[in-house]
Amino acid sequence: MKRIAICAPGAPLAREAAERVLRIAENYPALELHFHDQCFASEGHFAGSDAVRLAALLECANDPAFDAVWFAKGGYGSARIAEPFLGALEAAGGRKEYLGYSDTGTLLGALYGRQIGRQTHAPMPTDVLRTDGEAAVARVLDWLAGLPGGVEPALGPEPVAAFNLMTLAMLVGTPLMPDLSGHVVLVEEVAEHLYAVDRLFFHITSQLPDIAGLRLGTVSAVPVNDRAFGCDEEAIARYWSERTGIPYLGRAQIGHDAENRIVPFGLARATQVS
Amino acid sequence: MKRIAICAPGAPLAREAAERVLRIAENYPALELHFHDQCFASEGHFAGSDAVRLAALLECANDPAFDAVWFAKGGYGSARIAEPFLGALEAAGGRKEYLGYSDTGTLLGALYGRQIGRQTHAPMPTDVLRTDGEAAVARVLDWLAGLPGGVEPALGPEPVAAFNLMTLAMLVGTPLMPDLSGHVVLVEEVAEHLYAVDRLFFHITSQLPDIAGLRLGTVSAVPVNDRAFGCDEEAIARYWSERTGIPYLGRAQIGHDAENRIVPFGLARATQVS
Repeated sequence: MKRIAICAPGAPLAREAAERVLRIAENYPALELHFHDQCFASEGHFAGSDAVRLAALLECANDPAFDAVWFAKGGYGSARIAEPFLGALEAAGGRKEYLGYSDTGTLLGALYGRQIGRQTHAPMPTDVLRTDGEAAVARVLDWLAGLPGGVEPALGPEPVAAFNLMTLAMLVGTPLMPDLSGHVVLVEEVAEHLYAVDRLFFHITSQLPDIAGLRLGTVSAVPVNDRAFGCDEEAIARYWSERTGIPYLGRAQIGHDAENRIVPFGLARATQVS
Repeated sequence: MKRIAICAPGAPLAREAAERVLRIAENYPALELHFHDQCFASEGHFAGSDAVRLAALLECANDPAFDAVWFAKGGYGSARIAEPFLGALEAAGGRKEYLGYSDTGTLLGALYGRQIGRQTHAPMPTDVLRTDGEAAVARVLDWLAGLPGGVEPALGPEPVAAFNLMTLAMLVGTPLMPDLSGHVVLVEEVAEHLYAVDRLFFHITSQLPDIAGLRLGTVSAVPVNDRAFGCDEEAIARYWSERTGIPYLGRAQIGHDAENRIVPFGLARATQVS
């Protein structure tokens, strides 16, 4: 039996999402999901105050009975609690897998930088609410049950990390940023203008000079601007990669949609999962 | 006679704005304004291609006949041409004042970092289109004519720099970033959600440990979110300042509005203007 604790470091999860995820999990007898009540807390933008979110995250991480911590939803908030979280992690927190993406990439990146536990870019419980969202959730449950069919197909022999572009841009240069030298870095974005995507690539490419390459996931829900940007998101990624000497390696199947694939941080572990 | 060259490193300027600025400038016999044709060029998002914008900027900066370069509009684009611009600047470019804000803060910051010329956060020609925009433009023309009445009132004895928050966040950590140790840093923002403002403060405050203090300008046109953030922009600025040990010094009168004040980078020069 693998026990998975679920908490919300950023925005609150809808109860309906938890209920639907639990119904899907009934098909996985080897998995036991525990939604922490904090997932449904609400205080302004957040799923509870910083103290409430931090306490829930630490309960999930430090409890030796759990094998994994699955982040329920992004939406911003991880950056406020990441540093105190790292400071209060106990030994049990280092023996877990942490799964999520988007804003919770801040936590994945910070944990990866300190080599605490394992970190996996993966869909989150809130994704069940998307069209075809059950498939996204089943992909994660498959992965947790030892079926690696939902892993990003483009992974090679180099270590990898996957981030939301904005989340990575806010992480880079801070004490929470992991060393990504030699890594293939996958980025995706949602709900940003293409000029903002270009600006974010300016920011990250100048600070990732030693990465092995860049792959571009989905850039979705781009707002309509008063004029067209003039090129698409892949041309932007190519432009800044070439300008800064980073190999551009093509697309990846990550993004804020139901197709979002599993990306285990570090060296590919797809064949090592038990 | 002071001659001022105007070009657009980011988005194009409306011809109407140039015409209205020229009419206001008729009241300033000591000033001569030259709008470069590139201000009105258009290619996708930008006021002409990178090559076109760079060439115009260099023409303005390297021409010894001009005393100042005034950026016509922000809107993103400076980051694409800042590095080649610095590489091709000639001696005459170092004897000028550069004025603008928003996206063009990238250029002001990069020039300030290399101590090339003087840099002044100031309204731009495009601001004439705002309600009461004539006052914003007159404030800059006053400044250029030696009348410092429009200078930000909160400036003290420490060196200062003023930035759009997003522009500063994209600049920090890059080779274009100036050393702001000991500076009072003024930031303003427009059209960003408060959660994004919070995220930007997380990013910048962790990388400005040695600044003398932070002042918050106007945070305007905040989009309506599906829920309230839970605190206002000043509480955000205080939170991250306290958390990172930066003195929070209060508000400043800079922002994306007609009230936007003049902030000469570095040590206050208000009384030194001839």
